[in-house]
Amino acid sequence: MSDRMIYLDHAASSWPKPPEVVSAVVDAIEHHGANPGRGSHRMAIEASRIVFEARVELAALLGIGNPMNISFSMNTSEALNLAIKGFLKQNDHVICTSVEHNSVRRPLEYVKRTKNVSITYVETDVAGRLNLAAVQNAFQPNTKLLVCTHSSNLLGSINPLDALAELCKQRGVKLLVDAAQTAGTYPLDAEKLGIDMLAFPGHKGLLGPQGTGGLYVHPEIELEPLIHGGTGSQSETVEQPTVRPDRYEAGTQNVPGIVGLRAGARYVKQVGSAAIHRHEWELTQRLMEGLLGIEGATVLGPEIGHNRTGIVSFLLQGRESAEVAHILDRQFHIAVRAGHHCAPLAHQSAGTLNSGAVRASVGYSSTPEEIDALLEAVRFIRKAP
Amino acid sequence: MSDRMIYLDHAASSWPKPPEVVSAVVDAIEHHGANPGRGSHRMAIEASRIVFEARVELAALLGIGNPMNISFSMNTSEALNLAIKGFLKQNDHVICTSVEHNSVRRPLEYVKRTKNVSITYVETDVAGRLNLAAVQNAFQPNTKLLVCTHSSNLLGSINPLDALAELCKQRGVKLLVDAAQTAGTYPLDAEKLGIDMLAFPGHKGLLGPQGTGGLYVHPEIELEPLIHGGTGSQSETVEQPTVRPDRYEAGTQNVPGIVGLRAGARYVKQVGSAAIHRHEWELTQRLMEGLLGIEGATVLGPEIGHNRTGIVSFLLQGRESAEVAHILDRQFHIAVRAGHHCAPLAHQSAGTLNSGAVRASVGYSSTPEEIDALLEAVRFIRKAP
Repeated sequence: MSDRMIYLDHAASSWPKPPEVVSAVVDAIEHHGANPGRGSHRMAIEASRIVFEARVELAALLGIGNPMNISFSMNTSEALNLAIKGFLKQNDHVICTSVEHNSVRRPLEYVKRTKNVSITYVETDVAGRLNLAAVQNAFQPNTKLLVCTHSSNLLGSINPLDALAELCKQRGVKLLVDAAQTAGTYPLDAEKLGIDMLAFPGHKGLLGPQGTGGLYVHPEIELEPLIHGGTGSQSETVEQPTVRPDRYEAGTQNVPGIVGLRAGARYVKQVGSAAIHRHEWELTQRLMEGLLGIEGATVLGPEIGHNRTGIVSFLLQGRESAEVAHILDRQFHIAVRAGHHCAPLAHQSAGTLNSGAVRASVGYSSTPEEIDALLEAVRFIRKAP
Repeated sequence: MSDRMIYLDHAASSWPKPPEVVSAVVDAIEHHGANPGRGSHRMAIEASRIVFEARVELAALLGIGNPMNISFSMNTSEALNLAIKGFLKQNDHVICTSVEHNSVRRPLEYVKRTKNVSITYVETDVAGRLNLAAVQNAFQPNTKLLVCTHSSNLLGSINPLDALAELCKQRGVKLLVDAAQTAGTYPLDAEKLGIDMLAFPGHKGLLGPQGTGGLYVHPEIELEPLIHGGTGSQSETVEQPTVRPDRYEAGTQNVPGIVGLRAGARYVKQVGSAAIHRHEWELTQRLMEGLLGIEGATVLGPEIGHNRTGIVSFLLQGRESAEVAHILDRQFHIAVRAGHHCAPLAHQSAGTLNSGAVRASVGYSSTPEEIDALLEAVRFIRKAP
């Protein structure tokens, strides 16, 4: 069933994965089943080696000098929780944008409640554009962190990381970037851009399996770990070791997933993030052009011709977005996502908090024919009684 | 290389996995790549369904009535962190044993530092036996939690959960059990035993892939989540949803891993935890008998004939344990683990904090011939100059 599906939900998880990813996972389970860092026998050493190689691959792809500054996590949410809870202290102030995912907003609201951290949400305009002057005005003497998504998971809008990094640098404020929608699909040079922490998923643009993600932490930043426990190193101390990545990777890691992620990252490196972005952008433009030609269709996010990631959210007048998504799935075998996409503030900014939206998101494997099929289906739904 | 290895490191990760586990993981990546709970399209619904099935399988195996009281995690460490940090509050008192893994000890020391929680470590004897009177004496008016491993990962000793549960129940104290060394390989009826929270790994006795684990939480206990973020449910609220398992499962879960774990749990259910324990126990007795016949060899943990899990740690007079493990690996292709096994307190109890120990741990797939090969190798090492 799923094989004949037109899959346009890449912003949730990319699919299908390159075949190399699947074979890497199988190889890891069958041949490298030991626990990396937990034994001196060769199978454990081999497991350590391939996990390290994944780190090297990702560091190269994301513009990170020392691979040991990347720690793996189950997903972007865990990475963001580590960064936010591990960095912010009592009475700190933090700035973020109104298009942040709940994986940023909820940890922030948690530290607000438990550490008296104050939060400024800088509003974007309806298209997701951030007003830099508004960001500038948000800084306070106790501002310690700016958290910003690289691209809105609802609107596809792209935030100007270079300008934000510059603003932060001038004030000695650290910049945490949520690359959930860009890692792998958009050129990203973390250290050159001046990003202090970067959270990324393994299972979206990097084409790895679900259950993977990670956090880059600048070497001068020391976080309180999110998970305390065994690391196989410095077993005798009560405190978590300070050495990276052990400090942030307690317990047995998802080795098969990480090895699959290594294969995904290699695939992305081969094709190139710039080429993937170009491909996705062209498909979004094709989709937007088509949608704008349908009476009653409204497209969210940046205007046509402007830069965006592979996300196109839209509304259809007189139709609930959940209904549209349901018909697309059942009648047309097209997988999109309806609802609030874990980003209620972004919906508020876009004026769609009540209606929700239908989100189509393309990936490296999406084709113009799939876009045309979606457009045809939307036209059909629009005309249906 | 690894295929010809005698793998006796099951206490770290079980290997090899049943072939069904590998094919389940492949099937999940290839056919159920969508994000469960995050979309209404069929592929997402299908992903939700198979994750739910895994929960059902585990609930049946571990004696848990409502599968929704199990939440998945990356590993046991994460589950223990959620339980300990999410349950203990300012100025609480907690009791644990001296054979706890660092995945218990380090989170406890963290809440001691940040929430002024006080900890009583109840000493076991040299064999890992817990003195119930000492536990009884450890209760204080502000005792809220007793944390106890089901079986020491160094000594193989088994703690009397029924008696501990009774002690806790009398005092209104909650019981958190670390089942890292028993889930799947030892009969475990969590709710009948009166366990309030149970942390378990997916990649050890349950034969699932690395990157999986979980926590059972009694329905009357409400934890602060460890990871706040998107759940696909109640997107519009700032707080984490209260509905389970969503509350404790923010972000995209390791679906391929969980599906693999479902296959592993099914395999275990078919064979039966009691039969697996019997098999492992017989192998440990064979190994202990052999070791006790070698001059200069000392075996840790419960005496021969007594109950224990599949773990046999030993020392060889005049030989560093790291050296023994290294020779076993390089010359005999036998994978064991040397060192402190993330359990420094257990080594203190056993009197081996300085020397460390060589740990051999068997699994469902281990054979008497493998035990004999290990014994022959140890005899050789003992005699070598």
